[in-house]
Amino acid sequence: MRPAALLRWSIFLLLFLLAAHAVKPGNEQLDKAAQRRAEALHHLDTVILLTFISVLIVIVLTAWFFKHNRFRFVHESGLTIVYGLMIGCGIKYFNIGLWRSTTIDVLPSNKSSLYAPPDFLRLEVREDTKAQAVSFHYELIEGFYADKKKTSEQKIEQKTAFSPEIFFNILLPPIIFNAGYSLKKRNFFRNIGSILAFVFVGTTVSCLVTGLLLSMITKIFGMGFALQELLVFGALISATDPVTVLSVFSEMRVEPDLFALVFGESALNDAVAIVLTNTIDSFSMSTETIDFDSLLSAALNFLYVFFGSLILGSIVGCCTALLTKLTAIADHPLLETALFILFSYASFLLAEVLHLTGIVSVLFCGICQAHYTFNNMSEESRSTTKQFFHIISFLSESFIFCYIGVSVFVSKNQKWNLPFLLFSICSIWIARAVFVYPLCALLNIRRRPKIPMNYQHMILFSGLRGAMAFALADRNTATEAKQVICATTVAIVILTVLINGGVASWMIDRLKIKYGDQVSQEVTLPRSDSVGEAREMIEGATSTTPGQNPWDKAFLPRKWYNFDACFMKPLLTHANPSLLDTMPNCMHRISYFFTSDRQLANEGVSPL
Amino acid sequence: MRPAALLRWSIFLLLFLLAAHAVKPGNEQLDKAAQRRAEALHHLDTVILLTFISVLIVIVLTAWFFKHNRFRFVHESGLTIVYGLMIGCGIKYFNIGLWRSTTIDVLPSNKSSLYAPPDFLRLEVREDTKAQAVSFHYELIEGFYADKKKTSEQKIEQKTAFSPEIFFNILLPPIIFNAGYSLKKRNFFRNIGSILAFVFVGTTVSCLVTGLLLSMITKIFGMGFALQELLVFGALISATDPVTVLSVFSEMRVEPDLFALVFGESALNDAVAIVLTNTIDSFSMSTETIDFDSLLSAALNFLYVFFGSLILGSIVGCCTALLTKLTAIADHPLLETALFILFSYASFLLAEVLHLTGIVSVLFCGICQAHYTFNNMSEESRSTTKQFFHIISFLSESFIFCYIGVSVFVSKNQKWNLPFLLFSICSIWIARAVFVYPLCALLNIRRRPKIPMNYQHMILFSGLRGAMAFALADRNTATEAKQVICATTVAIVILTVLINGGVASWMIDRLKIKYGDQVSQEVTLPRSDSVGEAREMIEGATSTTPGQNPWDKAFLPRKWYNFDACFMKPLLTHANPSLLDTMPNCMHRISYFFTSDRQLANEGVSPL
Repeated sequence: MRPAALLRWSIFLLLFLLAAHAVKPGNEQLDKAAQRRAEALHHLDTVILLTFISVLIVIVLTAWFFKHNRFRFVHESGLTIVYGLMIGCGIKYFNIGLWRSTTIDVLPSNKSSLYAPPDFLRLEVREDTKAQAVSFHYELIEGFYADKKKTSEQKIEQKTAFSPEIFFNILLPPIIFNAGYSLKKRNFFRNIGSILAFVFVGTTVSCLVTGLLLSMITKIFGMGFALQELLVFGALISATDPVTVLSVFSEMRVEPDLFALVFGESALNDAVAIVLTNTIDSFSMSTETIDFDSLLSAALNFLYVFFGSLILGSIVGCCTALLTKLTAIADHPLLETALFILFSYASFLLAEVLHLTGIVSVLFCGICQAHYTFNNMSEESRSTTKQFFHIISFLSESFIFCYIGVSVFVSKNQKWNLPFLLFSICSIWIARAVFVYPLCALLNIRRRPKIPMNYQHMILFSGLRGAMAFALADRNTATEAKQVICATTVAIVILTVLINGGVASWMIDRLKIKYGDQVSQEVTLPRSDSVGEAREMIEGATSTTPGQNPWDKAFLPRKWYNFDACFMKPLLTHANPSLLDTMPNCMHRISYFFTSDRQLANEGVSPL
Repeated sequence: MRPAALLRWSIFLLLFLLAAHAVKPGNEQLDKAAQRRAEALHHLDTVILLTFISVLIVIVLTAWFFKHNRFRFVHESGLTIVYGLMIGCGIKYFNIGLWRSTTIDVLPSNKSSLYAPPDFLRLEVREDTKAQAVSFHYELIEGFYADKKKTSEQKIEQKTAFSPEIFFNILLPPIIFNAGYSLKKRNFFRNIGSILAFVFVGTTVSCLVTGLLLSMITKIFGMGFALQELLVFGALISATDPVTVLSVFSEMRVEPDLFALVFGESALNDAVAIVLTNTIDSFSMSTETIDFDSLLSAALNFLYVFFGSLILGSIVGCCTALLTKLTAIADHPLLETALFILFSYASFLLAEVLHLTGIVSVLFCGICQAHYTFNNMSEESRSTTKQFFHIISFLSESFIFCYIGVSVFVSKNQKWNLPFLLFSICSIWIARAVFVYPLCALLNIRRRPKIPMNYQHMILFSGLRGAMAFALADRNTATEAKQVICATTVAIVILTVLINGGVASWMIDRLKIKYGDQVSQEVTLPRSDSVGEAREMIEGATSTTPGQNPWDKAFLPRKWYNFDACFMKPLLTHANPSLLDTMPNCMHRISYFFTSDRQLANEGVSPL
């Protein structure tokens, strides 16, 4: 190194050293105490997580064992709930997940009374009598109301309860997205009219009937529930579950029209139920009388939130399609898959940020991704995304069902009320019957393959409740009435999954519904171990060729089909005919921009 | 219904109704306040998450753009960090993620002084002056020490900081597992001796030299760091990063021996660094003098934790292999994949619960899964698990690098100290040079393809720091010295990733290291867009046939290879020869039990 450089470096170093300053020594003892506490909590977290993972391992093994030996009355969801119940019992009575904590009573330092819960408390703690005090901040945990009577200095906390935020932000989106992404397009769209009728009319009727019936009964017996709370209960309990019955259906290879009706209803009515619940919940509690204006504004709000979310999700899906079409990102499957997953999750978050409903958005994003983006992706990304969402949604479902079982014993937010449970069970089946039979009768007036009576019974019977009902009930449990509703929902989920799920295959036999080899199908449903796979295979085999138009019934669907074939598909995918063929000549320049090299090559036009 | 049945039902119902009781009406106003607060926090969470997801989308797109246009000096990790820095800046100066909170000072109600932070505080809140008070519980957030001077009644909180628990329990395990699962077995095991020397001797030397050097310098300038803190810093900063340089290496198809050395070192020394950090950290702070006994016990503890975790992870991996071999779960790929993922995560949790190190356990579990379980799985599960862990680890890595950038602006746990940073940068490169050159010289005495000088320079140069160093530094930031260390670590990660990562390809040219078509390989490294894929392809192509023994050097490895071929592989996989051939005749019954039908069929013995 030359002397000049050396000098420059020395000056540089000197300047730095002038800035050198000592660090304050830490408050050692307090630091150690905080660290010990953090370690204890970490240990607890891992023990609980390990318990859940071990149970899931046992569930997977038992599920395999039952499948292997063809037990028909036991299925995964039911099994998972039963294991969850056993584990919950174990946690409660063998004291797993316990943590000895200290609680002290505090007063505001300025001695005033508080009228609203603050976000943080500041408290001084000293290392010893001489040392300087250190301030600690404490944050409020939502909904954690304490019982006034228990003044235990050494309280023992059970830490097995999860935050509902985790359900809504982490576990539910992949399940719902997967439902949309692996939709059997052909059978679904053939029955779209009936499905939409079930979803919109059915769910609303079910919500109102359940709520009003229960309101009547509880008024008679003076049980003190507000009408609003019961309507919220009606809305959340209307969400039927797409997991359990369908695993039975696909295993038995049930008639595809029935399959499409039941799957379509349960996949979409989760979305309606969540919007309905939020709409009713946002009504002011203080107004006891419900007038026409507030009803109308609620209905408008419902429509705004539902269709806003639907459009948002579809737009995000179409953006992904356009991006994968116009860039050559398919050359890098890892980046392509990452982009796909990130966009799909962004559709959920974006809707939540805009105060719409993420679940609805992610469902329709999934449908668009399957319809458009899927065609543009590389072979590798196709299989990766299919399998990725399939496995993630399987694990999330198993975890939720397991947790539903555990929560019975562990949750602090559940208050049991047997009479209310009994009334609820009656009400929900009455409410379901009230819309299934009349609606089918109405639909059968114009529907060409009519819905026969045994299908109607089966649709009624397939009204299982699952993850979404639980998550909605668990989300808000601040008042006692809501805690009763939460416990009732848990009980209904467990009972319907165990009983209806367990005897579904027997019911199919009993109702003389065709299944297995009795069904003569254009596309044979292959025997496979899960719903998703069966759906996949069918989807793969049914490409919508112009000759076999599934939309050959109503005016609006036919219009949409034409728009899709002439504009959306050429714009968003590599499929031919391209926009150059379907758009008028005056738009030539724009059409050319949105036409990919692959589309040009297919038409015999050499690309630039 | 018959009268008798009606009567029975009436009595049943009556019994229930006797149990009917009213629910208490909720404290409406407080309930609404709590709900509003929960909604505000949820909104904030989704905004922050959406910001991160959007940045990741932009990163993926830019990464594709740069790859597509062959920019060599910009790579994903560096790009991700730069975006993270920009977003952090945006969050700080455009006030994203702000939340207006209320803080009140409190005193213990019995007026006594506190000497340890309690877990919960209880505070009474009234709806109005007449109403009954409701108790709220507040929980302590770890390490959230407040500054005494700021007595702001309306404090504004920035909520963008993540808990280190998320890094350790959620984001790191898949990255480390994927490193083990997609290990290039052939080249890795050919260089195992040199790699282990780098990992054990190298990391320890680097830790000690960095710590002692910095201790000397800070004593001279009176900066008040404790030796223990500096040794912890030395340990955590010794963890080199397997992501950045290797993406450059695999893109350039660098000579496989060098690739194996650098990858092997960086994959395994994360594990050593974490155990070393914990060991030094658990030393009592109060004992200033370090005697031989405590050193010995620390060394023994280190060995116990490291090899305990190693053995635990391997056992879990072997259990999975045995399970997939002995059951026919491969018929149900979904269940098989789920089992695989759950077992792999369980190996992490199990080690943490037993106070071992989950990261080491999950790494060796991954190696065992690749070596044994992979052979038993169905074709579908193989590709699903490969792709699943690949994409999860890619997303986790991107997220961590992005967060490292963001944390510079957002984190409350970082205190910048420029002179210390300067000294640290010098120390870590001196420490790395101190072990690389002597160790290579020692190894070259017996090593057959010697490590040439230009490889040694490249190994020195490849000492990038990454996610693990950051996570370890971010975990404990209770004292000011530790906050300085955290900030320094962040700076070193950013500088090494940007500078060393950016000029790596130029350095390879400069050092005249063979790459691309210059390398004559037995197995050609295909051009692909990621490390994992390149590793995968190679692994697929190299089946260890007995003729090509890669362990042809030392005594111990040769013994292990024979044991693996004669006992472990026949026991744990469907590979032939089976245990019936390799075990003595007296063990026939046991051997028969562990021999699968497929193995029997291959040998021409008809199964039962």
